[in-house]
Amino acid sequence: MGELPIAPVGRIIKNAGAERVSADGSEALAVLMEEFGTAMAKEAIKLTRHAGRKTVKSVDIKMAAEILK
Amino acid sequence: MGELPIAPVGRIIKNAGAERVSADGSEALAVLMEEFGTAMAKEAIKLTRHAGRKTVKSVDIKMAAEILK
Repeated sequence: MGELPIAPVGRIIKNAGAERVSADGSEALAVLMEEFGTAMAKEAIKLTRHAGRKTVKSVDIKMAAEILK
Repeated sequence: MGELPIAPVGRIIKNAGAERVSADGSEALAVLMEEFGTAMAKEAIKLTRHAGRKTVKSVDIKMAAEILK
Protein backbone atom coordinates (compact mmCIF):
# COMPACT_ATOMS: atom_id res chain seq x y z
CA MET A 1 0.00 0.00 0.00
CA GLY A 2 0.92 3.65 -0.19
CA GLU A 3 2.01 3.60 -3.84
CA LEU A 4 -0.26 6.41 -5.06
CA PRO A 5 0.98 9.99 -4.74
CA ILE A 6 -1.49 12.25 -2.91
CA ALA A 7 -1.42 15.38 -5.10
CA PRO A 8 -3.02 13.75 -8.20
CA VAL A 9 -5.77 12.33 -5.96
CA GLY A 10 -6.44 15.85 -4.64
CA ARG A 11 -6.74 17.03 -8.26
CA ILE A 12 -9.24 14.24 -8.98
CA ILE A 13 -11.40 15.55 -6.10
CA LYS A 14 -11.08 19.13 -7.38
CA ASN A 15 -11.93 18.01 -10.93
CA ALA A 16 -15.06 16.33 -9.50
CA GLY A 17 -16.24 19.77 -8.34
CA ALA A 18 -14.80 20.33 -4.86
CA GLU A 19 -14.17 23.91 -3.75
CA ARG A 20 -11.51 22.85 -1.24
CA VAL A 21 -9.93 19.55 -0.21
CA SER A 22 -8.16 18.75 3.05
CA ALA A 23 -4.95 16.72 3.04
CA ASP A 24 -6.64 13.94 5.03
CA GLY A 25 -9.48 13.90 2.48
CA SER A 26 -7.03 13.29 -0.36
CA GLU A 27 -5.21 10.65 1.67
CA ALA A 28 -8.47 8.84 2.48
CA LEU A 29 -9.42 8.68 -1.19
CA ALA A 30 -5.91 7.51 -2.15
CA VAL A 31 -6.28 4.58 0.27
CA LEU A 32 -9.69 3.64 -1.19
CA MET A 33 -8.42 3.93 -4.76
CA GLU A 34 -5.43 1.72 -3.99
CA GLU A 35 -7.68 -0.90 -2.35
CA PHE A 36 -9.93 -0.82 -5.43
CA GLY A 37 -6.92 -1.12 -7.76
CA THR A 38 -5.44 -4.00 -5.78
CA ALA A 39 -8.72 -5.97 -5.84
CA MET A 40 -9.04 -5.36 -9.59
CA ALA A 41 -5.37 -6.35 -10.16
CA LYS A 42 -5.77 -9.62 -8.21
CA GLU A 43 -8.72 -10.62 -10.38
CA ALA A 44 -6.80 -9.60 -13.53
CA ILE A 45 -3.80 -11.74 -12.48
CA LYS A 46 -6.07 -14.82 -12.18
CA LEU A 47 -7.35 -14.10 -15.69
CA THR A 48 -3.80 -13.66 -17.02
CA ARG A 49 -2.84 -17.11 -15.66
CA HIS A 50 -6.09 -18.57 -16.99
CA ALA A 51 -5.06 -17.38 -20.46
CA GLY A 52 -1.66 -19.08 -20.11
CA ARG A 53 0.28 -15.82 -19.93
CA LYS A 54 2.65 -14.24 -17.43
CA THR A 55 2.15 -10.60 -18.51
CA VAL A 56 -0.91 -8.72 -17.28
CA LYS A 57 -2.42 -6.94 -20.30
CA SER A 58 -5.27 -4.47 -20.71
CA VAL A 59 -7.61 -7.30 -21.82
CA ASP A 60 -7.11 -8.88 -18.37
CA ILE A 61 -7.83 -5.59 -16.57
CA LYS A 62 -10.93 -4.99 -18.70
CA MET A 63 -12.29 -8.49 -18.08
CA ALA A 64 -11.61 -8.11 -14.34
CA ALA A 65 -13.64 -4.88 -14.41
CA GLU A 66 -16.54 -6.66 -16.14
CA ILE A 67 -16.47 -9.45 -13.54
CA LEU A 68 -16.15 -7.25 -10.45
CA LYS A 69 -18.55 -4.45 -11.45
CA MET B 1 -9.09 12.48 -16.44
CA GLY B 2 -5.48 11.39 -16.81
CA GLU B 3 -4.36 12.71 -13.42
CA LEU B 4 -2.85 9.46 -12.11
CA PRO B 5 0.76 8.65 -13.01
CA ILE B 6 1.15 5.21 -14.60
CA ALA B 7 4.25 3.88 -12.77
CA PRO B 8 2.63 3.67 -9.31
CA VAL B 9 -0.32 1.82 -10.85
CA GLY B 10 2.11 -0.68 -12.37
CA ARG B 11 3.62 -1.18 -8.90
CA ILE B 12 0.14 -1.81 -7.47
CA ILE B 13 -0.32 -4.62 -10.04
CA LYS B 14 3.14 -6.03 -9.21
CA ASN B 15 2.38 -5.82 -5.47
CA ALA B 16 -0.83 -7.78 -6.14
CA GLY B 17 1.33 -10.68 -7.41
CA ALA B 18 1.89 -10.10 -11.13
CA GLU B 19 5.06 -11.49 -12.70
CA ARG B 20 5.01 -8.93 -15.51
CA VAL B 21 2.77 -6.02 -16.47
CA SER B 22 2.38 -4.42 -19.90
CA ALA B 23 2.23 -0.64 -20.26
CA ASP B 24 -1.33 -0.88 -21.61
CA GLY B 25 -2.30 -3.01 -18.61
CA SER B 26 -1.13 -0.31 -16.21
CA GLU B 27 -2.85 2.38 -18.25
CA ALA B 28 -6.13 0.44 -18.28
CA LEU B 29 -6.08 0.09 -14.50
CA ALA B 30 -5.19 3.77 -14.06
CA VAL B 31 -8.32 4.71 -16.07
CA LEU B 32 -10.52 2.43 -13.93
CA MET B 33 -9.01 3.73 -10.69
CA GLU B 34 -9.57 7.33 -11.75
CA GLU B 35 -13.20 6.58 -12.70
CA PHE B 36 -13.69 4.93 -9.30
CA GLY B 37 -12.04 7.88 -7.50
CA THR B 38 -14.14 10.42 -9.42
CA ALA B 39 -17.41 8.64 -8.57
CA MET B 40 -16.39 8.44 -4.92
CA ALA B 41 -15.33 12.12 -4.90
CA LYS B 42 -18.67 13.26 -6.41
CA GLU B 43 -20.57 11.46 -3.66
CA ALA B 44 -18.20 12.91 -1.02
CA ILE B 45 -18.75 16.45 -2.36
CA LYS B 46 -22.54 16.04 -1.94
CA LEU B 47 -21.92 14.95 1.65
CA THR B 48 -19.58 17.90 2.27
CA ARG B 49 -22.30 20.33 1.14
CA HIS B 50 -24.90 18.45 3.17
CA ALA B 51 -22.75 19.06 6.25
CA GLY B 52 -22.60 22.81 5.46
CA ARG B 53 -18.89 22.78 4.63
CA LYS B 54 -16.83 23.74 1.60
CA THR B 55 -13.80 21.57 2.36
CA VAL B 56 -13.90 17.86 1.52
CA LYS B 57 -12.59 15.97 4.56
CA SER B 58 -11.79 12.33 5.22
CA VAL B 59 -15.16 11.88 7.01
CA ASP B 60 -16.88 12.77 3.71
CA ILE B 61 -14.76 10.30 1.75
CA LYS B 62 -15.38 7.56 4.31
CA MET B 63 -19.14 8.12 4.31
CA ALA B 64 -19.14 8.13 0.48
CA ALA B 65 -17.36 4.76 0.59
CA GLU B 66 -19.99 3.37 2.97
CA ILE B 67 -22.79 4.58 0.71
CA LEU B 68 -21.32 3.43 -2.60
CA LYS B 69 -19.93 0.07 -1.49
